[in-house]
Amino acid sequence: MELMDKITSLAKRRGFIFPGSEIYGGFAGFWDYGPMGVEFKNNIKKEWWKTMVYAKDDVVGLDASIIMNPLVWKASGHLDAFTDPLVECRVCHKRFVADNKKDLEKHEKEHENVEWTEPKQFNLMTEVFLGVTEPKEKAYLRGEITQGVFVNFANVVNSSRVKIPFGIAQIGKAFRNEVTPGNFTFRSREFEQMELEYFVYPDEKNATKTFDTLKKERLDWYVALGIAKSKLKFREHEPEKRAHYAKQAEDIEYEAPFGWSELEGIHLRGDFDLKNHKLSYKDAETQKEYTPWVIETSGGVDRAALFFLIDAYCEEGGRTILKLNPKLSPYKVAVFPLLANKEDLVKKAKDIYIDLKAKFNTSWDDRGNIGKRYYSQDEIGTPWCVTIDFDTLKDNTVTVRDRDSAKQERISVDKLVRYIENKLK
Amino acid sequence: MELMDKITSLAKRRGFIFPGSEIYGGFAGFWDYGPMGVEFKNNIKKEWWKTMVYAKDDVVGLDASIIMNPLVWKASGHLDAFTDPLVECRVCHKRFVADNKKDLEKHEKEHENVEWTEPKQFNLMTEVFLGVTEPKEKAYLRGEITQGVFVNFANVVNSSRVKIPFGIAQIGKAFRNEVTPGNFTFRSREFEQMELEYFVYPDEKNATKTFDTLKKERLDWYVALGIAKSKLKFREHEPEKRAHYAKQAEDIEYEAPFGWSELEGIHLRGDFDLKNHKLSYKDAETQKEYTPWVIETSGGVDRAALFFLIDAYCEEGGRTILKLNPKLSPYKVAVFPLLANKEDLVKKAKDIYIDLKAKFNTSWDDRGNIGKRYYSQDEIGTPWCVTIDFDTLKDNTVTVRDRDSAKQERISVDKLVRYIENKLK
Repeated sequence: MELMDKITSLAKRRGFIFPGSEIYGGFAGFWDYGPMGVEFKNNIKKEWWKTMVYAKDDVVGLDASIIMNPLVWKASGHLDAFTDPLVECRVCHKRFVADNKKDLEKHEKEHENVEWTEPKQFNLMTEVFLGVTEPKEKAYLRGEITQGVFVNFANVVNSSRVKIPFGIAQIGKAFRNEVTPGNFTFRSREFEQMELEYFVYPDEKNATKTFDTLKKERLDWYVALGIAKSKLKFREHEPEKRAHYAKQAEDIEYEAPFGWSELEGIHLRGDFDLKNHKLSYKDAETQKEYTPWVIETSGGVDRAALFFLIDAYCEEGGRTILKLNPKLSPYKVAVFPLLANKEDLVKKAKDIYIDLKAKFNTSWDDRGNIGKRYYSQDEIGTPWCVTIDFDTLKDNTVTVRDRDSAKQERISVDKLVRYIENKLK
Repeated sequence: MELMDKITSLAKRRGFIFPGSEIYGGFAGFWDYGPMGVEFKNNIKKEWWKTMVYAKDDVVGLDASIIMNPLVWKASGHLDAFTDPLVECRVCHKRFVADNKKDLEKHEKEHENVEWTEPKQFNLMTEVFLGVTEPKEKAYLRGEITQGVFVNFANVVNSSRVKIPFGIAQIGKAFRNEVTPGNFTFRSREFEQMELEYFVYPDEKNATKTFDTLKKERLDWYVALGIAKSKLKFREHEPEKRAHYAKQAEDIEYEAPFGWSELEGIHLRGDFDLKNHKLSYKDAETQKEYTPWVIETSGGVDRAALFFLIDAYCEEGGRTILKLNPKLSPYKVAVFPLLANKEDLVKKAKDIYIDLKAKFNTSWDDRGNIGKRYYSQDEIGTPWCVTIDFDTLKDNTVTVRDRDSAKQERISVDKLVRYIENKLK
């Protein structure tokens, strides 16, 4: 089985990611996160917020609505320029993104007669209709969460104590009417973004310096959370392929099984956005008014999740292991009574379980033999398994087994919480 | 100024909630959460997840997509029955929800000639158009997050170790094309829900018992997080006004300035949903197959936020105080150097600030006098303010001032983290 099939299958089997609306035959480009997936994804968002908001003195958060006044998208340029070139096969009427050479070649191989139309710009904004009078008012689901930050720029400046340079961070859903969703959750129609918009004084040298700092910081974040550095690289956008707003644009790419793929973009948007929205900034001290430049880091939560999964996937001696960074693992620890039918073992194990559960998301398993339970926890990436056995009743120690090394050590129950806390630091 | 105006104004001025797309004249029914609001709202969600998922052994989480296959909404009954009766004034063509007597009376008072049409059922599902061929495919933004749980019922059962009775919890956005959004964020077109769907063996007595337990638990949650018990009550739905799926339905209502208003619904949905989706459950031990019943607790994140804000709002001796439960406060603690121009004070204060910031969301303020800083933190509900003064440099103690009592006590710097941790328990 190909790696991507293995990951997709594990993701479904173990409750990470399910195909959206599966019982109704699915729905292209939509995915649901199961019991393991929601914890995993929330952990990614939590780590991002910790790094990008809490650890910084000059960044505040925001959570704007998904639907905004359509004038926002007119001003931002998205109604005109947020497009993919679309070609249609005249013979079978299937449509493809014109610059996705792989898909075009595949279609040409599979069909005898293929005749392409000229590329036509297709807008990716998802249309939504609101109001109670006919015709209803056309609005859009946001194609990027970014604009919610810009339209609130003045509100944030006026309500917070921010001063240039400062950043506004946001996590939230965005929607794109993708022509060809695919590669599991990599390209979907509904997805989640985590972005920092960092506002600086409009100065090329200064902005480039911040741009470089943020590039490094974002790459380091992925590495610190476990992605192999050799699988990550920067890719500079060719000037003619840059987004309509970008002065400088680089992507962090990950070497996925389907090729090097965008994980996060770092863009120098200049004054494009604030100017379009007719916004500016007045320095309280100098009384100078100007339009700040924006440096953006824009990552996909779902892409991060996918690539963390791929990168963590291991097969070792018949075991499948998700070697996730423990901070990202859905469960931090699992608790097993050695035998499920020995009352005193189970009672002791329950006590330990309850103690751990108050601190960490903790799994309980008393089915089958210990080996099977290890196997099951390895597959969902639980970093530590704690077994309560007959010695525990005598000397109050337990076996702690490490997911990656499969090594076991004997630890006093009193030290268990601290042991795991230290490992999670 | 009326209380609601005061709250709306404070929410905007201090960065809790801004009108959506305000720089474009707003957009009815959409709101954005600012730097304080996003922390506050995330804290509410965190507390809910802690109580409804982590503290329970029989509940798992889920995060389904907002857009699902339209067949979901056909099967669920929403395309037929998720409606409000709408009347139109024949004279001015304005439309209103027919059973909103207050709005109708207001319109009749304000206009000389009013002539109402017969009520017509208006569907609240928000239409969205997808795909790349014309006509695009009509889909819907979910009108409730609930259905995402039902369509994943089998996936969750198969991928997790859940056994009836068990629950699936979810937090996420939903959309309703409300005829008359209003009362600040109370009735909006985009909102966030936090729900538990708890599946039980289909037995009236058993289900009613769980229903009563969950009712109590949900009410207790609001009280534990600070809402005055006297402001909360249960309201049973009249049988003819129950939602199309409900066998039993009660709301937790809050006494808002605009009257008793729904905060959360607890519904016994019977087997309505799983049956509609042709889903059932097979007991692994008895091999008996049946359709479980569902008891649902469905609360609004935005409504909870609004009512927590209203309930916490106080004016005392010229001060405006948000007496939020510290767990919900955006900042847990604020750190002030007594004087901003004394280098050693500032340095010491920064050290303390960095220590606290590693543990809690912490605010730094060195502007103006201490009184003004207290006032400012009171308005956003920061429970504790720590002032570093000249004595701190001598004896390593600081003044901790309590938001609600305004009492100050002297605490050793070494004990500060523990002091706050204990208060937050």
